[in-house]
Amino acid sequence: MAFRHKHLLGIQHLTPSEIRAILDTAESFFDISTREVKKVPTLRGKTIINLFFEPSTRTRSSFELAAKRLSADIVNFNRLASSVVKGESLKDTVLNIEAMNPDAIIVRHQCAGTPYFISTFCQSHIINAGDGAHEHPTQALLDAFTIKREKNNIEGLKIVIVGDILHSRVARSNIFLLRKLGANIVLTGPPSLLPIEFKNFGVQIDYNLERSIEEADVVMMLRIQSERQEKNYFPSIREYRNLYSLTEKRFKQAKKSAIIMHPGPINRGVELSSEMAESAKSVILKQVENGIAVRMAVLYILLGGKEGETTD
Amino acid sequence: MAFRHKHLLGIQHLTPSEIRAILDTAESFFDISTREVKKVPTLRGKTIINLFFEPSTRTRSSFELAAKRLSADIVNFNRLASSVVKGESLKDTVLNIEAMNPDAIIVRHQCAGTPYFISTFCQSHIINAGDGAHEHPTQALLDAFTIKREKNNIEGLKIVIVGDILHSRVARSNIFLLRKLGANIVLTGPPSLLPIEFKNFGVQIDYNLERSIEEADVVMMLRIQSERQEKNYFPSIREYRNLYSLTEKRFKQAKKSAIIMHPGPINRGVELSSEMAESAKSVILKQVENGIAVRMAVLYILLGGKEGETTD
Amino acid sequence: MAFRHKHLLGIQHLTPSEIRAILDTAESFFDISTREVKKVPTLRGKTIINLFFEPSTRTRSSFELAAKRLSADIVNFNRLASSVVKGESLKDTVLNIEAMNPDAIIVRHQCAGTPYFISTFCQSHIINAGDGAHEHPTQALLDAFTIKREKNNIEGLKIVIVGDILHSRVARSNIFLLRKLGANIVLTGPPSLLPIEFKNFGVQIDYNLERSIEEADVVMMLRIQSERQEKNYFPSIREYRNLYSLTEKRFKQAKKSAIIMHPGPINRGVELSSEMAESAKSVILKQVENGIAVRMAVLYILLGGKEGETTD
Repeated sequence: MAFRHKHLLGIQHLTPSEIRAILDTAESFFDISTREVKKVPTLRGKTIINLFFEPSTRTRSSFELAAKRLSADIVNFNRLASSVVKGESLKDTVLNIEAMNPDAIIVRHQCAGTPYFISTFCQSHIINAGDGAHEHPTQALLDAFTIKREKNNIEGLKIVIVGDILHSRVARSNIFLLRKLGANIVLTGPPSLLPIEFKNFGVQIDYNLERSIEEADVVMMLRIQSERQEKNYFPSIREYRNLYSLTEKRFKQAKKSAIIMHPGPINRGVELSSEMAESAKSVILKQVENGIAVRMAVLYILLGGKEGETTD
Repeated sequence: MAFRHKHLLGIQHLTPSEIRAILDTAESFFDISTREVKKVPTLRGKTIINLFFEPSTRTRSSFELAAKRLSADIVNFNRLASSVVKGESLKDTVLNIEAMNPDAIIVRHQCAGTPYFISTFCQSHIINAGDGAHEHPTQALLDAFTIKREKNNIEGLKIVIVGDILHSRVARSNIFLLRKLGANIVLTGPPSLLPIEFKNFGVQIDYNLERSIEEADVVMMLRIQSERQEKNYFPSIREYRNLYSLTEKRFKQAKKSAIIMHPGPINRGVELSSEMAESAKSVILKQVENGIAVRMAVLYILLGGKEGETTD
Repeated sequence: MAFRHKHLLGIQHLTPSEIRAILDTAESFFDISTREVKKVPTLRGKTIINLFFEPSTRTRSSFELAAKRLSADIVNFNRLASSVVKGESLKDTVLNIEAMNPDAIIVRHQCAGTPYFISTFCQSHIINAGDGAHEHPTQALLDAFTIKREKNNIEGLKIVIVGDILHSRVARSNIFLLRKLGANIVLTGPPSLLPIEFKNFGVQIDYNLERSIEEADVVMMLRIQSERQEKNYFPSIREYRNLYSLTEKRFKQAKKSAIIMHPGPINRGVELSSEMAESAKSVILKQVENGIAVRMAVLYILLGGKEGETTD
């Protein structure tokens, strides 16, 4: 097994071969979800906790289904209404969960660094399911898995990421991952949502959407996360749409074989037109399907390996 | 297998033999829930989604227990707080769930026609768990199953349905079902809640409760769904109760062997007196118990049959 | 089997040998939660309902994990939003759940006596998971299990319970249990939260914390349940802390081997200092861990025994 971490906290510190190990394992799990009996006994008797401080339907349920299809027991802690009411600290909340001897804790939190912080005092395997604007590693892994299934290879592809880069943990994890696997990345979006400092990640920046898309292999739209913005980063949704919405006309700048991605949930008519969302070029729903295989792979690699094989 | 539909969207388009197929299958599942080990491996490895846009404790948990007693994996999506916050369309929400390869999606929604709409773009089996004032097919099936267990037969029985017919999906599904199996139906309730057009369903209408109940075999009370009414359909609860509440005295008009039904939750002292709710004639709690057997049957028929046996 | 009750409604009416039977059974379940495969098939095919009218993260999930590690099916009814909205009575809500043929119903309710009330009309095994200021028997059992593991024996120990005795179901259940097993109990706290009538339980009362702690074997802190108080029972949190917070200096009055307990969630800096909460003397997280073994034991004893062995 090429994967040498105890936790999955982000993509930044993974090696290319570790990323490939996850993607290859996901490939072997992909078929399970389309079988008559979509369940294997691999993680029977393991306890997995979904610890979601931010609301989430799709990521939580994707992990839940991944766990169930591996026969693990999973318990959901949603928003933790009761503990928050009672004024308990995050650390104490987690230590209490840890005391119940879970094997893995899947954490989503509005603050960057929370999963890392939790990993410093927990014995369980910690999986980051999104922390503030920091990382969302399983999203980047399922995106890479999707690209690999569509394009066979990631190295050398031109991948354009469009939108609110500044607030996007999805963008950050994808930049790390796709760079490690040798893709050429172009970031585009309103300057207020795309600081020039992102150049340090080894990517190109171009504030013009049409030009960015030229000859692209993959166009990855980001969600306009209006609920995360504390101030206005662009004059209006209409202005954003005029400049950065993916329309059929704009998409024609890309390669004929190009695909359209979006982490969901989509705002039809904002990040992309309904036609684009539903076109044959869109792999948005494949991303969702692939998410289960990738999360099964992550759970399997972290929990299914024999003790002593991991080094951190 | 006499059942030739891919989905269970309503009773209206089922044939009598299809209804009987479900009721007979439910009979074979009935005992499981009273065994020491109330679980069979029939649907092991199947994924079932409870997609409830309206709050529901009893129907959701009835389906959840039915699924678990068949060894299926079930994931709850309740009210979908997070997606609704994020402004995703219903279709996109469902397509995302569908992308996770569920076998069945159980849908409750405040708008009539939603389960049908979903069935037009989903590969999964769709089960209507109540859509607006349209249909609630598993409720009608469990009602019929209960009547059959109590009376052996449905054909020729006099069944009186009392109350807010206008807003009741339970009434509508029961009218379809009981007519198909040959019962004689009398509807009664305040004229504002019982439009004369219901006559077109092949039923009798009588606005006088006492007269309606005469010689009835079954008296089925409907819930006063104050939360669904946008305007006042009767002067007051007190007036409603004076005219349409089932009391011991009124129930004496029915046959000696008559039974009392209610889909729950009951408003004691409104639709029926506490004495009636708790009398030996009441089969209200048997309806709840039977609900699990009927829902197991529906899940089994839709998911357990071999591919190619269904035609729509 | 020494346990002769159908339900677990409280500690008050258990015999010492019944308590010991639960603790001994818990010992035999303890290891399961630390195994690679933390699951046994003991209660496969049993249906358990978590019926929580008060919010709770830790107790609910502890029962949920206990049930899952015994392979039972468990369904959560949280706060029962929908039924409460619909105005159904408690009795009808429970009768509806009972009609689904559960084996056990685990009840938490803000009103003392609710689990007992439910047991009067249900066939299922009822487990009290906390009822008002009355009892919380599984908490006392896990506390006793923890003390026994740390101290080998409970008889003759000096156990000090500190804080809001008046509102604490935890205190009440612990007083019953620890007295039955022969411990010497000292209660301490502000006079407004510790009425002199508690002396009738066969305990000592001392309003001075330092003096109470002298030579103690166990110091059990209670949570300041500000959400349960309708009026102010002490001038301010600061004053409470000055007099009753467990600090290092105060804890030095206890025996060198003394341990610190707290039912959680803790208010750091109120009931005890952070140093005390995290010290080697604290067994607070062991209490959480032990909770699962104790709840597995309770479920096993109530549901796993052969019919006819119980007498009430």
